[in-house]
Amino acid sequence: MTYYFEDLEVGDTFTAGSYTVTKAEIIEFAEQFDPQPFHVDEEAARESLFGELVASGLHTLCISVRLFVTEFVRGEEGIANMGGLGMDDLQWHRPVTPGDTLSLRIEVLETSPSTSHSGRGYVDFERVIHTDDGERVLSLLSHNIVERRQNGG
Amino acid sequence: MTYYFEDLEVGDTFTAGSYTVTKAEIIEFAEQFDPQPFHVDEEAARESLFGELVASGLHTLCISVRLFVTEFVRGEEGIANMGGLGMDDLQWHRPVTPGDTLSLRIEVLETSPSTSHSGRGYVDFERVIHTDDGERVLSLLSHNIVERRQNGG
Repeated sequence: MTYYFEDLEVGDTFTAGSYTVTKAEIIEFAEQFDPQPFHVDEEAARESLFGELVASGLHTLCISVRLFVTEFVRGEEGIANMGGLGMDDLQWHRPVTPGDTLSLRIEVLETSPSTSHSGRGYVDFERVIHTDDGERVLSLLSHNIVERRQNGG
Repeated sequence: MTYYFEDLEVGDTFTAGSYTVTKAEIIEFAEQFDPQPFHVDEEAARESLFGELVASGLHTLCISVRLFVTEFVRGEEGIANMGGLGMDDLQWHRPVTPGDTLSLRIEVLETSPSTSHSGRGYVDFERVIHTDDGERVLSLLSHNIVERRQNGG
């Protein structure tokens, strides 16, 4: 089924995953978008705050969006997401290192119908990325626009 | 010069850019991390909320980090960034479309020395991405760790 605005209730949770991060992918991503030494150079990373090569936090965020879209949004079964407005309280709790396997948990925090667009509602999600041993690595709140049922359900 | 924690004062601003976004890059990024129809398929995008193909907001965020790192952080001249803790108040003000030329403006909002690590301080930056006609497309607050001068100045 497709989850329209009316189908989402505060407290609903969904889980998706998993995705295993490789060293090659960490370096390739960082070379393109976040070329700081501790993301692209193992030797420099050992001298850094982190002590080892770590994924860009932006990379972890991108993986979280990939899991959100491929497992919850796209296709016949998923949330009828129309777009994103923004994010709040994005926190990187610990670095992701090569070989970490990541999963996503989302929870509906708030829903409100649009007062100006009858076909839309606003949904706030908490999104948490955790490793397979349950450690949180990333959390955020996202503000999304979700389609309403056209024919009243 | 390198900007250490002590060199950054509230109100300091820096600008960087520019970066022109292509249609091919928008689709390639979205296929990897945000494969929603309005980011990867021009025809489907015309039927969407946006009415045309638009860059993933995550892509715009990645470009903003790329500009931050390549122009402010990396190399001999730049901010002695040790890592990021999180972000707040991330807002996508309008979609980015193929051909848009983006620049970054950052401003120091708050600085506070670490009480537990003598070599570190915390700096909050406002980061704004705007087009070359001055329209804001993305804004956020970032919470960073910045190195202190080792020898008192």
